[in-house]
Amino acid sequence: MSRVWKIGVAGLGTVGGGLLQFLAERPGFAPAGGQAVVTAVSARSRTRPRPVDISGLAWFDDPVALAVSPDIDIFVELIGGSDGPAKAAVEAALKAGKPVVTANKALIAEHGAALAVLAEAADVPLLFEAAVMGGTPAVKMLREAMVGDDVAGVAGILNGTCNFILSEMEQRGASFADVLAEAQRMGYAEADPTMDIGGFDAAHKVTIMAALAFGCAPNFAAAEIEGIDQVDLLDIRLARDLGYRIRLIASADRTPDGVAVRVHPSLVAQGHPLAETRGALNALFIEGTRIGRIFIQGPGAGAGPTAAAAADIADVMTGARRPVFQAPAVGLKPFVAVAPTRRVGKAYLRMLVKDQAGVIAAVSETLAECGVSIDSFMQKPVEDAGGVPIVLTTHAIAESVLTDAINRIEKLPAVLERPRLLRIARI
Amino acid sequence: MSRVWKIGVAGLGTVGGGLLQFLAERPGFAPAGGQAVVTAVSARSRTRPRPVDISGLAWFDDPVALAVSPDIDIFVELIGGSDGPAKAAVEAALKAGKPVVTANKALIAEHGAALAVLAEAADVPLLFEAAVMGGTPAVKMLREAMVGDDVAGVAGILNGTCNFILSEMEQRGASFADVLAEAQRMGYAEADPTMDIGGFDAAHKVTIMAALAFGCAPNFAAAEIEGIDQVDLLDIRLARDLGYRIRLIASADRTPDGVAVRVHPSLVAQGHPLAETRGALNALFIEGTRIGRIFIQGPGAGAGPTAAAAADIADVMTGARRPVFQAPAVGLKPFVAVAPTRRVGKAYLRMLVKDQAGVIAAVSETLAECGVSIDSFMQKPVEDAGGVPIVLTTHAIAESVLTDAINRIEKLPAVLERPRLLRIARI
Repeated sequence: MSRVWKIGVAGLGTVGGGLLQFLAERPGFAPAGGQAVVTAVSARSRTRPRPVDISGLAWFDDPVALAVSPDIDIFVELIGGSDGPAKAAVEAALKAGKPVVTANKALIAEHGAALAVLAEAADVPLLFEAAVMGGTPAVKMLREAMVGDDVAGVAGILNGTCNFILSEMEQRGASFADVLAEAQRMGYAEADPTMDIGGFDAAHKVTIMAALAFGCAPNFAAAEIEGIDQVDLLDIRLARDLGYRIRLIASADRTPDGVAVRVHPSLVAQGHPLAETRGALNALFIEGTRIGRIFIQGPGAGAGPTAAAAADIADVMTGARRPVFQAPAVGLKPFVAVAPTRRVGKAYLRMLVKDQAGVIAAVSETLAECGVSIDSFMQKPVEDAGGVPIVLTTHAIAESVLTDAINRIEKLPAVLERPRLLRIARI
Repeated sequence: MSRVWKIGVAGLGTVGGGLLQFLAERPGFAPAGGQAVVTAVSARSRTRPRPVDISGLAWFDDPVALAVSPDIDIFVELIGGSDGPAKAAVEAALKAGKPVVTANKALIAEHGAALAVLAEAADVPLLFEAAVMGGTPAVKMLREAMVGDDVAGVAGILNGTCNFILSEMEQRGASFADVLAEAQRMGYAEADPTMDIGGFDAAHKVTIMAALAFGCAPNFAAAEIEGIDQVDLLDIRLARDLGYRIRLIASADRTPDGVAVRVHPSLVAQGHPLAETRGALNALFIEGTRIGRIFIQGPGAGAGPTAAAAADIADVMTGARRPVFQAPAVGLKPFVAVAPTRRVGKAYLRMLVKDQAGVIAAVSETLAECGVSIDSFMQKPVEDAGGVPIVLTTHAIAESVLTDAINRIEKLPAVLERPRLLRIARI
């Protein structure tokens, strides 16, 4: 019970530095009866100031050399990036029979299936709780707790930066560009925010969740991804008038046709827990076919990933062996993506039209011809909108029908720009 | 990896029957690479109709004999009750070196410390996810995910029957007695509802959570328990006018003086996730000192406990070894209860007074003399209340001050009955 586990940490940014500090402050961090001690590190700069003195630790310029070092028992990868040194080091560690703990969502979403084969062949854990939802243990819930049920789907808010931006736009009436600039000044958004605001970060996370929930190989390439950079303040206001808030919803659903993994800015009814999830919070619904709906919510930023990585180290120390995803890696089902055109759902359509007679008639006639069944219709003058906004919500219809209608409405003479489509979340 | 685990199940009620059915329908239930097969059962009646044919399974009249049978690898206890055959069988199984899975909250809350010593001495798991929050994995979160943080406290709604009754009273304006009778007819409440409505069930659950969160020995006897049987529809209405809903809040807090475990009907601000937790749902906040607040919510009834027991069986099959609570059983800290009089918090006080001049002056003077600092004050005529209700909320004050004030107000000539005290939840 008193075994010492030597930990090698590659990447000493916020999470890595925090982990070193946590383990240094807790000589008694021994949840499974052993002791976890960081003995070796690797990072880009050896001399950068850090929260913990690393002069007593073995130093590796090359994370791959650290990963295979006979002097470590667990390799912790906190370098980041789906390829390059992170991938090389994790592969090397697994091939050398070392358990791996990582916070790298891109790596797992893009190469998780192959890495799971390596881990299971070597009979060592590959854990990545820190990759999603900060300290809220979504991975553990899907991988371990839901084995007594079948997951029908998951849906939630997985990117704190996007949720912060959407919440601020809504509360302050500020534009996307203004709030983004402020978030960057405050350190809530990266200098290059593409991964976050483009929806790619949320897509990485929900791709991993689909594999954990459904036992399919993660297939990031099959995810349907739309970010928040095209969300207009006008739509946030109009959605509010209709009783909704706009949130970047990431979802994974098991359907008879395959698995649908999607990230879209979506309308969520006010009062719904996801609509009321504000700021940098993350939140997730897990729908079990027998248990029903479980909801989890927690900070998407802060000390969470550090705590999650520490919990993963503790899990390694328990000696537990389970598949990396919901089924053994060699038996993962292929992830058959559902064609976007086959999606059926409710939608929000917003047009900008000229202020002239007969426009509503022309629009409604086109919608009727296309077979779009309308749930609500609103024309509302808005200052500085550059036209008169017409907004409508539909009953559940096929996405192909909607696309056809949008293409035809765009061509009407009184319509000023391509109608804006937002999905209404089904959750 | 293809090891067969022979499961013995004692108790074939809803959870036990459901578990047999689940495992029978899933020959592929092999999350950890093994196979779980029920081979032996014990129950009160051998001939009662069940969802699964048990004629092919070994039958034991005595659950203790099943628990020690050399033909089982895991003992699942679903008998219930803190003592008697459930306790005898679990003790026997652990002493015989069998891993134990149970849904028995009373057993773990009242005898968990001694059972943990037995389990850890035998180096076998003792798991009880099914004891709390149905299929929402609160035990796993506290035991496994929070090891990378320190839990400052937990607070939530842990009894679905009480939450159903309070929600119905609020929504339908019906009395406690009427809603309880209906809940019993519908099967939502037991024929003898004392464990639920008396707060004991919630207290068992939060006692277990305190041990998981703080690494103290579970000490049910130290819990402060108040049920919902004295919650008056009048208070639900007055609380609503003040912007609150009444919920049975179970909480465990780590304080400099010790651990405070409490169950009280409490006022929760409208819009707060616990106030919006309705019907038979369960919900819990976990406050990590570094991560921040995590919220989980899920059905408190239904197939959850069955799924949780199945997940526990899967956990046993992984070979994981960790302490039963947050620290090894021999090193659990004593659970030092905080004296109720030392509690400081905001409160709701409701009086019924005679409709005569000078009453408010007399009440406010007494409150001022006692040093009760008032936050809001409301006198409101209510039909059939048997007097005029005066309701006030206080700033945070010591419970001893409040008790003194209540004792003195009760003696005022114009006051018709002992003032009713409800806590305002701090969450």
